[in-house]
Amino acid sequence: MKILLDAMGGDNSPDEMIKGAVEAIPDLESEIILIGDENVIKNKVKEIYNKEDISEISPRLKIKHASEVISNEETPTEAIKTKKDSSMVVGFQMLKNGEGDVFVSAGSTGAFMAGGLLQVGRIKGVDRPALCPMLPTYDGKGFMLIDCGANTNCRPINLVQFAKIGSIYMQQVEKRENPKVGLLNIGAEESKGNDLLKESYAQLKEAKDIHFYGNVEGRYIFDGDVDIVVADGFTGNITLKVIEGMGATVNKMLKEELYKTPWRKFLAFLLMPAFKNFKKRMDYSEYGGALLLGINKPMVKCHGSAKAKLVKITLLQAEKFAKNKVVESIQENIDK
Amino acid sequence: MKILLDAMGGDNSPDEMIKGAVEAIPDLESEIILIGDENVIKNKVKEIYNKEDISEISPRLKIKHASEVISNEETPTEAIKTKKDSSMVVGFQMLKNGEGDVFVSAGSTGAFMAGGLLQVGRIKGVDRPALCPMLPTYDGKGFMLIDCGANTNCRPINLVQFAKIGSIYMQQVEKRENPKVGLLNIGAEESKGNDLLKESYAQLKEAKDIHFYGNVEGRYIFDGDVDIVVADGFTGNITLKVIEGMGATVNKMLKEELYKTPWRKFLAFLLMPAFKNFKKRMDYSEYGGALLLGINKPMVKCHGSAKAKLVKITLLQAEKFAKNKVVESIQENIDK
Repeated sequence: MKILLDAMGGDNSPDEMIKGAVEAIPDLESEIILIGDENVIKNKVKEIYNKEDISEISPRLKIKHASEVISNEETPTEAIKTKKDSSMVVGFQMLKNGEGDVFVSAGSTGAFMAGGLLQVGRIKGVDRPALCPMLPTYDGKGFMLIDCGANTNCRPINLVQFAKIGSIYMQQVEKRENPKVGLLNIGAEESKGNDLLKESYAQLKEAKDIHFYGNVEGRYIFDGDVDIVVADGFTGNITLKVIEGMGATVNKMLKEELYKTPWRKFLAFLLMPAFKNFKKRMDYSEYGGALLLGINKPMVKCHGSAKAKLVKITLLQAEKFAKNKVVESIQENIDK
Repeated sequence: MKILLDAMGGDNSPDEMIKGAVEAIPDLESEIILIGDENVIKNKVKEIYNKEDISEISPRLKIKHASEVISNEETPTEAIKTKKDSSMVVGFQMLKNGEGDVFVSAGSTGAFMAGGLLQVGRIKGVDRPALCPMLPTYDGKGFMLIDCGANTNCRPINLVQFAKIGSIYMQQVEKRENPKVGLLNIGAEESKGNDLLKESYAQLKEAKDIHFYGNVEGRYIFDGDVDIVVADGFTGNITLKVIEGMGATVNKMLKEELYKTPWRKFLAFLLMPAFKNFKKRMDYSEYGGALLLGINKPMVKCHGSAKAKLVKITLLQAEKFAKNKVVESIQENIDK
């Protein structure tokens, strides 16, 4: 298999993309094709590893030249239309043409979703592809939040499809049997929420091939009772960003308190294993990137601020995504 | 001034309500009238403080008898209509009739909001009263989230009114000059979000008497850049509950890591002041209860699981709310 990696996407490219690929390659069966400016990548490889060519590090590391880069500031649909030789658009085309099995990028989320939809194409029967990160739970299993950004205005049928495609992924990749689907709502009772949620609840209750748990409130999503949390893209995105913001704030506050005096610093140093583990447990990036489900090929959005370690995790996740034939299962099992 | 306290509301009533009132009274200028079953309250006072009457503790502590209690399981509008001698309905009536200046309850949120709207009455010009908790920020100032539950389906005019009434509270009670109002959205740009948000943005930009900051993403609400975060009640409620859930999970995980071995426990014990401060900084209950703004009298919803300390904080907050004539200012300044 071949993993396509946008070497130019994200805040720390190409350095961290290259390092992530180099660190991931021993744990992968696949090849990684780094897409981006060949000279820039070669110079970086020389600088970091003192090698003339990346293939000297591993023969399964390759470069595909692309001269342009899409930035976060550009209008996504416009950018993917005009920047034909950008690392992202070259990635979409290679993915579509079968020159790669899965595409990973830490670049513009908007351009990534637009390219998936418009250039790679959606699966027939999935009206709206969805962006789905894995988020932490207390028990360490994690849950999938679907959708968290691709669809601002949703209809009940979209939420039912999210439940189905999310369930297929969780079964085939995460190996969870009968994954439980919760509908993110402001109360547990069937009558709760706005019109979209009430109608979605009714349809999810009747839907086949999923294990519907019922409504789940935001305060219980971290408990591990549900495997998949379904939301419209607006609510999901708000949820994701509140989690991100709170996580960052908690870390900052804790650090500040622990570093306040030399004595505290010393004690905190002795407690380092506890803090490391704590940070790891609540860090959602430990779970990898956000999947773009509903597209005809596997695509994974890596966090924009990703460093090598997270790039590596995302590459491993991408291989599992492609290997377990999730896209094929969705194609077969979704109502056309 | 007189503070009306629903002695029978919440998971820990009447014990924690009584203790909260007793602990608050030295710091208050007001009287507290505890509303609830007189015998039950008297027996508890005897049990906890070994006094025949609560007025022996302070002459500013009084009891008003009410024989019934509204539970969380009852339908709010039904319950406030039928249970005329419940502690909550007696509270609404006393507040309305001027027998008290502010009402505090830890009982059913739904019944509290319904009673405010239907029995106490809303301010003319405020189409939808809003429930607004104060939430923690990194810098310790906190921000107001308005609305977080009273209104599931909102129109742009409601959000503009939330911004105005929230600003009046923050100016008069929290003494913040020109408090900054952020619109909770999935991106910073004006074009982001669903139709409600786009139109609300346009109207907020033109609104007088408020300092509109623009859109604010969930990941930045804890930074202290905005004083007031405006959202429709559905989005606000989701946000509040995600914050609650994550806060609880973070605490549980941290505790577990720190208690894993006797050595860690010992170190953690030495670091207790740091953890206490950390917990305090991220604990939103330190900021008091949720205000019900837009009602003709001051009302404060105390957290259902509140213990004495939080009841006390909420009573102090309630006195400030009433003393600073927020309701009167809203009545004068809102467009009729």
